[in-house]
Amino acid sequence: MSLIVQKYGGSSVADAESIKRVAKRIVETRKAGNEVVVVVSAMGDTTDELMDLANEVVPMPSGRELDMLLTAGERISMALLAMAIKGLGVEARSYTGSQAGMLTDAQHGSARIVDVTPGRVRAALDSGAVAIVAGFQGFNRGTGDITTLGRGGSDTTAVALAAALDADVCEIYTDVDGVFTTDPRMVPAARKIDTITSEEMLELAAAGAKVLYIRAVEYARRHGVTLHVRSSFNNNEGTLVINPADGESNVEEPLIAGVAADLSQAKITVVGVPDIPGKAAQIFTTVARAGANIDMIVQNVSAAATGRTDISFTLPKTDGPGTIAALEAARADIAFETLQYDDQIGKLSLVGAGMRTNAGVSAQLFTALFEAGINIEMISTSEIRISVVTRADTIAAAVRVVHTAFGLDSEEKAVVHGGTGR
Amino acid sequence: MSLIVQKYGGSSVADAESIKRVAKRIVETRKAGNEVVVVVSAMGDTTDELMDLANEVVPMPSGRELDMLLTAGERISMALLAMAIKGLGVEARSYTGSQAGMLTDAQHGSARIVDVTPGRVRAALDSGAVAIVAGFQGFNRGTGDITTLGRGGSDTTAVALAAALDADVCEIYTDVDGVFTTDPRMVPAARKIDTITSEEMLELAAAGAKVLYIRAVEYARRHGVTLHVRSSFNNNEGTLVINPADGESNVEEPLIAGVAADLSQAKITVVGVPDIPGKAAQIFTTVARAGANIDMIVQNVSAAATGRTDISFTLPKTDGPGTIAALEAARADIAFETLQYDDQIGKLSLVGAGMRTNAGVSAQLFTALFEAGINIEMISTSEIRISVVTRADTIAAAVRVVHTAFGLDSEEKAVVHGGTGR
Repeated sequence: MSLIVQKYGGSSVADAESIKRVAKRIVETRKAGNEVVVVVSAMGDTTDELMDLANEVVPMPSGRELDMLLTAGERISMALLAMAIKGLGVEARSYTGSQAGMLTDAQHGSARIVDVTPGRVRAALDSGAVAIVAGFQGFNRGTGDITTLGRGGSDTTAVALAAALDADVCEIYTDVDGVFTTDPRMVPAARKIDTITSEEMLELAAAGAKVLYIRAVEYARRHGVTLHVRSSFNNNEGTLVINPADGESNVEEPLIAGVAADLSQAKITVVGVPDIPGKAAQIFTTVARAGANIDMIVQNVSAAATGRTDISFTLPKTDGPGTIAALEAARADIAFETLQYDDQIGKLSLVGAGMRTNAGVSAQLFTALFEAGINIEMISTSEIRISVVTRADTIAAAVRVVHTAFGLDSEEKAVVHGGTGR
Repeated sequence: MSLIVQKYGGSSVADAESIKRVAKRIVETRKAGNEVVVVVSAMGDTTDELMDLANEVVPMPSGRELDMLLTAGERISMALLAMAIKGLGVEARSYTGSQAGMLTDAQHGSARIVDVTPGRVRAALDSGAVAIVAGFQGFNRGTGDITTLGRGGSDTTAVALAAALDADVCEIYTDVDGVFTTDPRMVPAARKIDTITSEEMLELAAAGAKVLYIRAVEYARRHGVTLHVRSSFNNNEGTLVINPADGESNVEEPLIAGVAADLSQAKITVVGVPDIPGKAAQIFTTVARAGANIDMIVQNVSAAATGRTDISFTLPKTDGPGTIAALEAARADIAFETLQYDDQIGKLSLVGAGMRTNAGVSAQLFTALFEAGINIEMISTSEIRISVVTRADTIAAAVRVVHTAFGLDSEEKAVVHGGTGR
């Protein structure tokens, strides 16, 4: 008998009909002889609607009360799902984050899990019932208050429960067939990946792939949880995200796992920075204080004649205005000449564990882009990833040529269902 | 400093604007130097909408899951109300039934309160905050599950908290100005009652007055909680429901407190019952097994010639079909001749503690009805109440003439706001 944790997002439980469809799938899994724990998000747009209601009442809602409010969403979906399963003749019981033992710190809106004590969930399984657990929510023992985990919280709930219950697999249900070699909406020849390491998945997620949240993948990796990303609209096998033990290489690692594109970043260039020690530190301390998550950094070679240099970095567009303001405020201290802000950039990332043992990947990437007439503006690399920044309007073409150049194209076209899978 | 428990029903917190209005009133009460605990129902029709959703998913939802589902309603209203109060600069914290220590038995959908341990509510008050508590919901320690208290549950929550916290008063906010001598929609000359005993209030509620639930009044009476029923739409004094100590009579009790009408009952007559011992017991055992709450019973004098008699009783219309079916199934055993079902009856009740010491009330009531040409079909009495059954279509006229005959008419017309106050 296997223990399976299944996570269904809001689009999978958007209305009564969807809830009944999901209930049927859960019952099938249970009747196949598995123990089943289900983590569920709020129905459809419930969370957004509750947030709108809060903003109607007060401009800056209290974090504690906002968490109390938003957790009503999963309470509704989990109770309905449990009813639907019981209606199909299988015992089911729903549990809030608190009842399921999701203990967190007291950081309302973005709480971190500090412990998972799923005694009641385990007891429900032992009694033969399906346990339905509210995603996204937790409980702080010190204050006795309800918390929420922030974006992607339901994925994290599922992975944390899978780890605590020593589940065989954590299935993340979405509206696409799994993780693809690149975004199928951009490259119709994208191929579903059957197996990927959590390390590669992390790099892909960090590079802009939307199918899984970084936080959930990190948690799965740290706790050795196998993820299975699959569609709730069919019974196809999806993508397994595995954790090969250190030094274990019975998995034949492909050179390249996938190509990710990210159009959410902007580039700031600090022009005419005095080329003396400490200036870079000064700039990035200012940026960090503004709360920006910077990604790539490039410092140009100094022009000897002027003794000045340019420093460019990328950051989420949403962090742009605040960072610009912080740098402008520090202009006299840093003594730079001007600032340039460019939000028309795109980032392409090539991810593959095989890169570790293959030196030719960069050259092959640059050649493919050059032959397609695509200019590279910035480059950064990690052990298993190469990222390049290009113009935003060339990113789709860039992904296509790179996808082809590394032999990732599929024969058949990917089937993409509506929605975003969250 | 007084400790005031305030209860606001769904119509008082139906939307963001109403919530802000109620928040303002709470803040005024707090700033006047009172400690304030607020019990709140779900917004407007939320509970009905959640119930509809449950019925879409499955015809007979599980009680445990239905309670989990429905309690999401108060979670939303209480969090929004706490946010709104904080937005006005006064500290406020919301608590679920479980957090507020509303301990109940495990009867989902109609749980009984077994203990109230409002430690967190008391601590919130001690820290100067307003405590907002979800109405209608509780927690069973044995199962660890969430429960609901059933109809009128929020009133009961408020009274139970007031008792446990030894509050000075429990204010029940509704959309009318208080308790009236009779339904102002039926009798425009109805007068607001300034003070009424809980004993009288109980009889009025049992006789069909809708403004307070019997259960909450019973709880208040048993625990000596003073209720103040008042409108959330103005600052008028409402009706005080008091508990005079035994033998204490500094309250001048009026002869008649009010007149209640009830059109929700039907009459069943079991015709031709053998007039031998044990038949009545047989009939009412059958009725009780069908789950019907019977109210009045009349047995006709036996006709000596036939050795048979008729037995009539009243019961809620909703219990009618089931009771008829149960009696039909027992027809051979009981050996009655026919059943008659009459759902066109109305019940008028006259309530007043002064009746105890005044013998002429019945005669005065029957005279007033006789002079108005209204026929009396059944009569029942308690120590402080007389009820009569008439035709349904004469009940409004009956209430008017009785209201006038006992000198209850007001000079001014009552102001009635929309809605039912629940």
